[in-house]
Amino acid sequence: MEPEPNPNDMASLSLTTPTPTPDGVEVEVEGDAGSSSSISKSKAKKDAKKAEKAEKAAQRQQARSRPAAVTSESDEPDPLSSNYGDIPVEDIQSKFITGRTWTGVKDLCAEMKDKRVLIRGAAQVIRPVSKKMAFLVLRQSMSTVQCVLVVSKDIVSPQMVRFATSLSKESIVDVEGVISVPNDPIKGTTQQVEIQVRKLYCVNRAVPNLPFNIEDASRSETEFKKAEESGEQLVRVGQDTRLNHRVLDLRTPANHAIFGIQSQVEKVFRQFLESEGFRGIHTPKLIAGSSEGGAAVFKLDYKGQPACLAQSPQLHKQMTICGGFGRVFEVGPVFRAEDSYTHRHLCEFVGLDVEMEIKEHYFEVCDIVDRLFVAMFNHLNKNCSKELESINRQYPFQPLKYLPETLRLTYDEGIQMLKEAGVEIEPMGDLNTEAEKKLGKLVSDKYNTDFYILTRYPLGIRPFYTMPCYDDPAYSNSFDVFIRGEEIISGAQRIHLPDLLTERAEKCGIDVNTISSYIDSFKYGAPPHGGFGVGLERVVMLFCGLNNIRKSSLFPRDPQRLTP
Amino acid sequence: MEPEPNPNDMASLSLTTPTPTPDGVEVEVEGDAGSSSSISKSKAKKDAKKAEKAEKAAQRQQARSRPAAVTSESDEPDPLSSNYGDIPVEDIQSKFITGRTWTGVKDLCAEMKDKRVLIRGAAQVIRPVSKKMAFLVLRQSMSTVQCVLVVSKDIVSPQMVRFATSLSKESIVDVEGVISVPNDPIKGTTQQVEIQVRKLYCVNRAVPNLPFNIEDASRSETEFKKAEESGEQLVRVGQDTRLNHRVLDLRTPANHAIFGIQSQVEKVFRQFLESEGFRGIHTPKLIAGSSEGGAAVFKLDYKGQPACLAQSPQLHKQMTICGGFGRVFEVGPVFRAEDSYTHRHLCEFVGLDVEMEIKEHYFEVCDIVDRLFVAMFNHLNKNCSKELESINRQYPFQPLKYLPETLRLTYDEGIQMLKEAGVEIEPMGDLNTEAEKKLGKLVSDKYNTDFYILTRYPLGIRPFYTMPCYDDPAYSNSFDVFIRGEEIISGAQRIHLPDLLTERAEKCGIDVNTISSYIDSFKYGAPPHGGFGVGLERVVMLFCGLNNIRKSSLFPRDPQRLTP
Repeated sequence: MEPEPNPNDMASLSLTTPTPTPDGVEVEVEGDAGSSSSISKSKAKKDAKKAEKAEKAAQRQQARSRPAAVTSESDEPDPLSSNYGDIPVEDIQSKFITGRTWTGVKDLCAEMKDKRVLIRGAAQVIRPVSKKMAFLVLRQSMSTVQCVLVVSKDIVSPQMVRFATSLSKESIVDVEGVISVPNDPIKGTTQQVEIQVRKLYCVNRAVPNLPFNIEDASRSETEFKKAEESGEQLVRVGQDTRLNHRVLDLRTPANHAIFGIQSQVEKVFRQFLESEGFRGIHTPKLIAGSSEGGAAVFKLDYKGQPACLAQSPQLHKQMTICGGFGRVFEVGPVFRAEDSYTHRHLCEFVGLDVEMEIKEHYFEVCDIVDRLFVAMFNHLNKNCSKELESINRQYPFQPLKYLPETLRLTYDEGIQMLKEAGVEIEPMGDLNTEAEKKLGKLVSDKYNTDFYILTRYPLGIRPFYTMPCYDDPAYSNSFDVFIRGEEIISGAQRIHLPDLLTERAEKCGIDVNTISSYIDSFKYGAPPHGGFGVGLERVVMLFCGLNNIRKSSLFPRDPQRLTP
Repeated sequence: MEPEPNPNDMASLSLTTPTPTPDGVEVEVEGDAGSSSSISKSKAKKDAKKAEKAEKAAQRQQARSRPAAVTSESDEPDPLSSNYGDIPVEDIQSKFITGRTWTGVKDLCAEMKDKRVLIRGAAQVIRPVSKKMAFLVLRQSMSTVQCVLVVSKDIVSPQMVRFATSLSKESIVDVEGVISVPNDPIKGTTQQVEIQVRKLYCVNRAVPNLPFNIEDASRSETEFKKAEESGEQLVRVGQDTRLNHRVLDLRTPANHAIFGIQSQVEKVFRQFLESEGFRGIHTPKLIAGSSEGGAAVFKLDYKGQPACLAQSPQLHKQMTICGGFGRVFEVGPVFRAEDSYTHRHLCEFVGLDVEMEIKEHYFEVCDIVDRLFVAMFNHLNKNCSKELESINRQYPFQPLKYLPETLRLTYDEGIQMLKEAGVEIEPMGDLNTEAEKKLGKLVSDKYNTDFYILTRYPLGIRPFYTMPCYDDPAYSNSFDVFIRGEEIISGAQRIHLPDLLTERAEKCGIDVNTISSYIDSFKYGAPPHGGFGVGLERVVMLFCGLNNIRKSSLFPRDPQRLTP
């Protein structure tokens, strides 16, 4: 019943099907590998400039003449010509199912010595050494491996080496070859083995002139400093250039690591909350009224009705609590039409939201924050060391200091600490970015933690749905959480009494008609509840000590950027 | 460092703090429970109408006179008055942290006989039996338990019974009591134990006149039929009424089950894909051009630039593949400004999206679909029987038939099956809803499966980014997946060659200028890839055989509905 490729098609597959090689041949090849490796260390540097020239020439030649079938630039016929070339378009249009085994670059290791492997990757580096030899560095995600082509009778022809050096950087290639293990460590690749290339096919060529090179985009400040000291000129890729060509920029090891961390943050968020009886939900992003009030709302026409993009899932997540859901979380986009052009604001970001019934006290919510984030930080430090190292190489940072049980201070205690340090704060006003930073430093010095909770904020600076304190209505049952002196989480007990909610909304200048279905929700029996919201990009940025939230957003949106 | 409630405050806590009761008293009470249980069976029916009348009267009396402190409607002083009443507002404003142990209704079982428990729940049923006795059914999510109040010296006063019967339905209450196990099964509650009430406090009263009762909203067609046969009139809650008051509607057992299933579908989706090396990503919903073309796009002003809401994460998920991410998935909102007012279209839904490099053939994508959904269906059947039963009780459905390895047919084979059954289809046109249904029936009869994949669709009816077939450009490397004769998944190999992509976009009438950053992504070395998208609400709807997608969306958005 299942359509299989026509067996006749399979016959024409010699181009991409591996032909088994007797073990003897592979061992013989291993000898080559040893010598090539030593060459790679001694000659590589000397030939670098020459190579680059040759590469550019080859690229220019290739640029506009992309062949539809096997490339043979030489006039002499090559009996080994089926071992290399550009794969014809139709061969990558789901023509075959060969069942060949593909190996991942990250899995290549010394234990695989002499094994024949098949790999697809991006040609990050193409380095001609001579007419008889060339290196290729193949990349897959954060892993790279060095591939060696050495002319060898009946195995690698000079034409094949020429084909290899004609490839443009970042082209997608299939390499078949034998694993060898050089005596000396390989600099510049993650995997400490080489592949002695037997077959090499180009799947899809990149344009020869990339907006920038991945190596340039991957350099750390340390490298720039070193180069400057030695009088070398390195290309520096600016942030806008990166973001304009984000698909290239994303290929750097640090970026793969950053989004690896991002996915792990979300994973722990979900797993921890599920284990605590929370249920994942999805609330609408198209709503009739604004969810948080204020001007920072994107408006649109919804089939003739005025609509807003939700500034948070606040109203609807509370409504699921009124629906008896008990404990919920949501991961979804949040839209803020703010004009903030800072290092930490985006017009669209990913909100991690939590809402839960509370029995007595909003500290029940703080308890969840505490345990959730400690579990998250522990997980990242324990299981993502490769990613953290990779980020650290390009963007050095100090590991986050945090306590097994998260420190809680009241807002007044925070103000007092600032006061004692000579920083005067309007007691019932909000902390500005500078004061937050300063308090973070004071807390870090005094309590040895970069992660803490500040509770009991003045009511006047919190959203209308925040529950006032029982003993002083100037304060509220609310909290913010800080990492490295920057706010990442806001949370509170909510008002579950419809009359009080209406009163507070009106006092805050909200048109209660636009949120009547929200307010009505509390009339049908609503339990006391609270919750919090946190920006995914901010967690990643601050855990990794990044200096700009655009680094932790796949395709960032700010007041000036809507593409790519 | 952690602010604790003032110990002086704790002293005033007698209202909500349990006082330990000697075992002897509890056993004596257990005797009462036995007799009350037999009453509950014999008297309940007879007294139903009378009770309802009394209840309504009590509700009316309560309606506008919500007391701020303990209610005592009687003029006689009650020495037991601290055992019941309305909790003062300030007591639920995070005044206390008592450390009391709360029990979940779902955890109540016969093994807990004679144990004293503390429970918070919604008062789903309030049934006065006499001046000396009343029943309360407390609900938490899908679980319910019967609570019994019987006047008993020094334990339950007549005033306390009166207070209980004064509660409005759906009010949130705290009950403290002793578990008893009646001899006969308890009809109408999930838990087969009763709670002999010792203390009863109202946390938050519901308005006395709810838009509808949860019992009415929970009835099945079977119940309606039975009632009709016996000449009884039952209240039927229409879909718009339900959706207008969604927080009430969400409280039905079937709805709790539906959204339990929804969260499980997402959970399996993530876990399966993560185990296969996929990474969760988040792409922007605010984009410059439309992602799928066509008119069904919400437009808005983005800081002076024209913007669209993404109709799918298509372009950006492909761009992460160009960024070397290898295998990605996304769960996020998808916006379609379609005018479809059908049982299966929404203007906003949750998209489950997958994109992956393919080595040779788009069947690699079909393989993921196959194994993912079989794993998902197996998981739901194995681990969610309680939820499925609960849905089945209100909305009866046949379990989904599916094969261990999913059936694949070509589009032409499908057309042929329809033709043989007398249904003529325009061979290169799309299947309409009717033809899909019919083909689903034919496939179900012939292959015994409600879940199958239809491959190799005509190119003309697929999006511009779909890869044409290598052997016939009138067809494409694409597929749809069906459950119970309705399409739920669309997938394909994508065009990774920028020239072909531009050509196809132009042919499909897309303004390539609006998607230039997308097309450029393929110029820098793009691997062959494919993927698919599926609507979360549709999976839930069709797995559970629901008749309307609004039943599987928390707060559905259709052309006429933007609230709640």
